[in-house]
Amino acid sequence: MHLVVIGGTAAGASAASKAKRTNPEIDVSVFEKTGFVTYGSCGLPYYIGGIVRTKEMLSDFTPDALREKRDIATYVHHEVTTIDRANKTLEVCDLGRNECFSVPYDYLVVATGASPIMPDIPNVRADGVFSLRTVEDGVAIRRAVQEESTKRALIVGGGFIGLEMAEQLSCLGLEVTLIEALPKLLPSVDEEYSDAIRRVLEEHGVRLYTGTAVREILVDGGKVVGAKTNSGATLGTDLAVISVGVRPNSSLAKSAGLETGVKDAIVVDEYMRTSDDSIWAAGDCVQTFNLITKRPVYAPLGTTANKQGRIAGGNIAGDMSSFKGVLPSQITRVFDLYVASTGLTAEQAKEAGYDAEEAKVTKMDRASYYPGGEDNHIKLVFDRRSGRLVGAQAIGSESIAGRINLLAAAITAGMTVAELSELDLAYAPSVAPVYDPILVAASQGKKRIIPV
Amino acid sequence: MHLVVIGGTAAGASAASKAKRTNPEIDVSVFEKTGFVTYGSCGLPYYIGGIVRTKEMLSDFTPDALREKRDIATYVHHEVTTIDRANKTLEVCDLGRNECFSVPYDYLVVATGASPIMPDIPNVRADGVFSLRTVEDGVAIRRAVQEESTKRALIVGGGFIGLEMAEQLSCLGLEVTLIEALPKLLPSVDEEYSDAIRRVLEEHGVRLYTGTAVREILVDGGKVVGAKTNSGATLGTDLAVISVGVRPNSSLAKSAGLETGVKDAIVVDEYMRTSDDSIWAAGDCVQTFNLITKRPVYAPLGTTANKQGRIAGGNIAGDMSSFKGVLPSQITRVFDLYVASTGLTAEQAKEAGYDAEEAKVTKMDRASYYPGGEDNHIKLVFDRRSGRLVGAQAIGSESIAGRINLLAAAITAGMTVAELSELDLAYAPSVAPVYDPILVAASQGKKRIIPV
Repeated sequence: MHLVVIGGTAAGASAASKAKRTNPEIDVSVFEKTGFVTYGSCGLPYYIGGIVRTKEMLSDFTPDALREKRDIATYVHHEVTTIDRANKTLEVCDLGRNECFSVPYDYLVVATGASPIMPDIPNVRADGVFSLRTVEDGVAIRRAVQEESTKRALIVGGGFIGLEMAEQLSCLGLEVTLIEALPKLLPSVDEEYSDAIRRVLEEHGVRLYTGTAVREILVDGGKVVGAKTNSGATLGTDLAVISVGVRPNSSLAKSAGLETGVKDAIVVDEYMRTSDDSIWAAGDCVQTFNLITKRPVYAPLGTTANKQGRIAGGNIAGDMSSFKGVLPSQITRVFDLYVASTGLTAEQAKEAGYDAEEAKVTKMDRASYYPGGEDNHIKLVFDRRSGRLVGAQAIGSESIAGRINLLAAAITAGMTVAELSELDLAYAPSVAPVYDPILVAASQGKKRIIPV
Repeated sequence: MHLVVIGGTAAGASAASKAKRTNPEIDVSVFEKTGFVTYGSCGLPYYIGGIVRTKEMLSDFTPDALREKRDIATYVHHEVTTIDRANKTLEVCDLGRNECFSVPYDYLVVATGASPIMPDIPNVRADGVFSLRTVEDGVAIRRAVQEESTKRALIVGGGFIGLEMAEQLSCLGLEVTLIEALPKLLPSVDEEYSDAIRRVLEEHGVRLYTGTAVREILVDGGKVVGAKTNSGATLGTDLAVISVGVRPNSSLAKSAGLETGVKDAIVVDEYMRTSDDSIWAAGDCVQTFNLITKRPVYAPLGTTANKQGRIAGGNIAGDMSSFKGVLPSQITRVFDLYVASTGLTAEQAKEAGYDAEEAKVTKMDRASYYPGGEDNHIKLVFDRRSGRLVGAQAIGSESIAGRINLLAAAITAGMTVAELSELDLAYAPSVAPVYDPILVAASQGKKRIIPV
């Protein structure tokens, strides 16, 4: 049996590894378009910032290691250009030699990932304008940043990657401007938390324009020198990074007639099987579903990609399991402010039919008398009738990471805010207050439940 | 209606405050034997170590503030010596004036807390031998520690307080010896984690004797100069702290004929009511029950005391709620090592009838390529047949705090290790690895479930 994995992404490598581990008899091949496999895009801002020293550190495995340690026939700089479902063959092109050939398959995992969305504006492909997705992108930006003439950077898009890039380029001493078309930064958190991110960026000298779109990249001699906004302003820059989101790499699957859904992502069932029984798909190229609402969503995340790949690979090898959906849970750090969210915002919850209510607290993450404590700002979203927790957001010290994960577990378990308020959580003055911020928020939420 | 609270402990003050808040018509009085109310014993090692600067910081409220801000008639240095249940009166003695008087009550909350166990060995009450429970104890130790002649300290007992004292006195430059009668430190964690605590203490110069008991306190001129162990060794010291556990202050309740149970703690139902309908009790003086096994236990903890007090006070005022049991969840820091546990150990789980199995991992708390990551060592205890999680232990970086709390929530929700392994947790290279240590441990656990 021959399993071909299209894409050496986190999802693809996970699928290949899990299939091989589950059944070593299976022949597994991986074809990857770039020169790297098993790398995480999430680490790229820190490679550019120099915190991660070498590009090699970003990958769990080199192609050689995947081949030797896991017995997976791994080919980089190889692009799959056609899936012939009738004959169960692929057309694969060796990008180095410019040669194409045919490869038969019994099973296929499509793990082609996603590509940065490039806005349709003049000069968006000019020299000095970058997107950030592959290790190659990271190498190119790092090189550009290190040039002595690069003193200013313009970041287009205030999502996770945009914020992380703003932090890292600012730490490198660049004069950073961030521009976001929506009225606020980071769509996964509400305005008051988004405002806190704005403040921390401004405190660190980042210039911010929200509710402002780039209309045109300005060039001189083919190289970026600035951008013109929809308000008519001109922002000068030596380098621009476009980070306005990603779209699934689904054209190959679509051309083969596989069903696509939200944002043109490949439709899969909970076992990660596409509309063709021999073809499975996983990661940033597929449509998934929200764990709470069960509705289809597009949620390209590293954690999800890894899990889905593993499930697809395991299922093909006969070890059936299913994907349980995304909340999604997300976190990042912007300078010394941590920002995290899980589940639905109140708005999303209302839209999904919940009688959504919020409870919000600001509380120290240690005993009040113990020095060094920092504030945790926590917001819970719950249904006013059932009391069920359906979402949470948090900003503050690093300890919000553990708290948002606890809340993710509570949402998954179907806990109510009343149950949450009664949890027996660990306390020590040096680590946590006697009433954890979660318990305080949950107690407040409990008071707003409509008695039956 | 007159509610009298015996003890200004965390539980007592919580009961008084909650009753008053729920029904401001109730007259509430609090009688406290010491000079302080609403203080946490947990902060005392850090007051002694100078991290908490003043003793006032350890209390949430002064007696005056409790009186003025919460309208609670608060009396310190007042001891309740008798409960006359037939006449619903108390005998209260003003320890300052040495006068006793009678106080009528409609409802009573017994929140007398616990007292340190003092081993029955010669000279245990000698000058320079301390226990640590009240603010007064803390003040006395801090004073003794600051004397120039105090260069060495002997700590008897390797539980939470003993470990925290060892750390703090060591940080103050004292030569610290810790002696523990049991074969290992900290009964709530298993040997391998306990060994890690031992190593970190020894790295910081603390001399350790486990499996060794003190037979006699040695004195010179009435003052401690050392201790003789059961192995015949003599340990010299200038100061000794006895921290071998606490026992409930239940003699008052017992004399009044109230039922007592485990370790002579006062028996209460889930509403915190004693065997007398007018008398409720909460905190370190009561018997509680394990959330998982439902069996009675004695678990004197700050978090539990606060919650139970609140429940007792609310119930008396007519806002019925019940206590859900303890796991218990615990955490502390020993130098740079954090140690936490929740639920049952494998041994306790077996004893409770579970087919207990463990899954154990050591994993970095960040992406492997992101600098500054530290190890998390996590152990899950679960039932091999149902897969249900029943306990967890963790040592490592500060981030274990959030993880142990997530596991406490998972245990409370009745989650299986399979469900735990599928959680959608937040990831960012700077904060957490793509597969959280909890997910990795749970995946391992899942493989050991006996298929039905």
